[in-house]
Amino acid sequence: MTASQQKKRLSILGSTGSIGVNALKVVENLSHELTVTYLSGNRNAELLIQQARKFNPRAVAIVDDAAAGKVAAALPDTEVLQGREGLLELAGRDDVDLVLNGLVGSAGMEPTVQAINAGVDVALSNKESLVMAGDYIDRLLTQTGVKLFPVDSEHSAIWQCLTGEDMVDVERLILTGSGGPFRTRDKETFDSITVAEALKHPNWKMGNKITIDSATMMNKGLEIIEARWLFHLGPDQLDIVVHPQSIIHSMVEFRDKSVKAQLGVPDMKIPIQYALTWPRHRPADWEPLDLVRVGQLTFEAPDLEKFPCIQLAFEVLKEGGSAPAVLNVANETAVYRFLRNEIRFTEIPIMIEKALAAHDLIEHPQMEDILSLENWTQHYVNQL
Amino acid sequence: MTASQQKKRLSILGSTGSIGVNALKVVENLSHELTVTYLSGNRNAELLIQQARKFNPRAVAIVDDAAAGKVAAALPDTEVLQGREGLLELAGRDDVDLVLNGLVGSAGMEPTVQAINAGVDVALSNKESLVMAGDYIDRLLTQTGVKLFPVDSEHSAIWQCLTGEDMVDVERLILTGSGGPFRTRDKETFDSITVAEALKHPNWKMGNKITIDSATMMNKGLEIIEARWLFHLGPDQLDIVVHPQSIIHSMVEFRDKSVKAQLGVPDMKIPIQYALTWPRHRPADWEPLDLVRVGQLTFEAPDLEKFPCIQLAFEVLKEGGSAPAVLNVANETAVYRFLRNEIRFTEIPIMIEKALAAHDLIEHPQMEDILSLENWTQHYVNQL
Repeated sequence: MTASQQKKRLSILGSTGSIGVNALKVVENLSHELTVTYLSGNRNAELLIQQARKFNPRAVAIVDDAAAGKVAAALPDTEVLQGREGLLELAGRDDVDLVLNGLVGSAGMEPTVQAINAGVDVALSNKESLVMAGDYIDRLLTQTGVKLFPVDSEHSAIWQCLTGEDMVDVERLILTGSGGPFRTRDKETFDSITVAEALKHPNWKMGNKITIDSATMMNKGLEIIEARWLFHLGPDQLDIVVHPQSIIHSMVEFRDKSVKAQLGVPDMKIPIQYALTWPRHRPADWEPLDLVRVGQLTFEAPDLEKFPCIQLAFEVLKEGGSAPAVLNVANETAVYRFLRNEIRFTEIPIMIEKALAAHDLIEHPQMEDILSLENWTQHYVNQL
Repeated sequence: MTASQQKKRLSILGSTGSIGVNALKVVENLSHELTVTYLSGNRNAELLIQQARKFNPRAVAIVDDAAAGKVAAALPDTEVLQGREGLLELAGRDDVDLVLNGLVGSAGMEPTVQAINAGVDVALSNKESLVMAGDYIDRLLTQTGVKLFPVDSEHSAIWQCLTGEDMVDVERLILTGSGGPFRTRDKETFDSITVAEALKHPNWKMGNKITIDSATMMNKGLEIIEARWLFHLGPDQLDIVVHPQSIIHSMVEFRDKSVKAQLGVPDMKIPIQYALTWPRHRPADWEPLDLVRVGQLTFEAPDLEKFPCIQLAFEVLKEGGSAPAVLNVANETAVYRFLRNEIRFTEIPIMIEKALAAHDLIEHPQMEDILSLENWTQHYVNQL
């Protein structure tokens, strides 16, 4: 076996997004053990072309049809797949060791299912996969033996804290959240929150959709639902603590009241690299955590009045069935409407609540149920 | 096999001390899986008798000859071993599964060696064992296959954070310390520190000797030396951070700059129980950590000018050989002189430095070298 054959072969879905770009930095640092087999982008043709020239993937997929021609022309020696179908085909290829799903939103769900069906482990940054289809994907994982590796900093923290531990000994998971840009803002002024204000996250540099989710704290709600499926614990074992400095990324409380936490500077490269190199912590030359310089870490209870999205997430988690999928799509649709200045910040949770009330709960949704609910919810929220 | 035979059989050395008393509370809570086979006390006959009546050990040892008669009279059906020899004999018995060494000071070193030679794993609270005879004990562990389980909250934290991890991936260990009662006190007034002031620890309720060590911060120095032997890392991979709230008990930084920490309320029962039930975190009904109530955790660099004992510990760690043993005994002797109001608080490090300068370094001390150095150092410091 040559050195090149021993490298871990990666398929990076969403390589032109925030997670994908950071993942490629990790690959570059660990080029002796990681290699890129596939890349996919949504519509940023220039960046995808640049990445393909640097990492030499076997094939790339580009979702946007207008951008596809440009990519194909620029990469004459590379297979170029096109459109949503191209992405799904790429996601289902089995000649890789790990798919990193860095896609944004509910569009990332089917690619996760494709990879699992191909028998390939998935490093999952796309939390919507489990929020929308947690029960379905969970059964699929049991059938196929495929593993999911969390990439979200919170779930990576919990995963790291659980290394070598017995789940029976876990009392609860404590997800930390910065509280977003509006933690200290007067609730009475929430109606006038602008897109620019909501896009200013205090600690993390992320994509637009997730940054708004952080501002509404729906991000924490989605993470609670994701944690339920990743770690198989009930709603009463999942807690949220607001921690504005984003240094403790999450915690596990064990039954002897010992708590383990994972800490680090707020840099997505750390959880991304861990998912790509698990179970090892490979050397990296980025900035270490200096707690003396940080000085203090603070903690608060989340304000559920100010951030009703958290409450909505706990409610759909208890309700189960198709409710989390509707919550997720309604949130996503409302967030994009907010980003287009069509609705106010405070209308996001109202629209989600309306969609949840209007939809007919399906107890055990199949994939086609989820996909048709996605259409229904998008349409419903766009009409409001 | 009966249920009783399946229980883990414990020998608790120093059962009337702070660690021993807490350990017996743990045993009481987990009486379905832990049983007490041996107990030993120093001179508190009443408490030892009370403990023996409650836990029905096969034998007890009492070091103080004057107290021994009282214990023997009160426990006619229990074997009572007497004096230092009695303690050493008890420590060397092999019909137990685990020895908890909760003895205070250098007197705890030989019992650790006795237990290891008997092939019994040791839950080690007596840090002096490794500080004085780290190299010797380390070789003994390799020969016998016996395991040491840390009980100190700092080392337990590190041990827990290392669960399931590869030591090759560890960048450094970060031991936290409260900074003791004099963290914010003006250095110019250190000469006038009274015994009563030094015994007021802000967070932990511990024995007198260790509480003074905490006030001089020598405790952190001894822990650094202990960590070197428990986890086999060099002085440059061992750091100290002052953390006044004593909530984060210590941390491990991995090579990817991910940091794991173990947290909890400052209660020795947590690390004691973990050492007794490892690798499991058994249910316990004591107070869980409530970070929202704690509110904030702060961090500072240790002040080496104010607390020269830390610097002395790093120096002997680099020097190696018999230097750590001399440091430990000189410190212990000076602390007891301070507790007897014979010397000033600031004379503790001065006496240690003098003893270190006066002693002839032995590169690879044997047990008899360490014991004779112990005598020499006690004598030397008491004469100063």
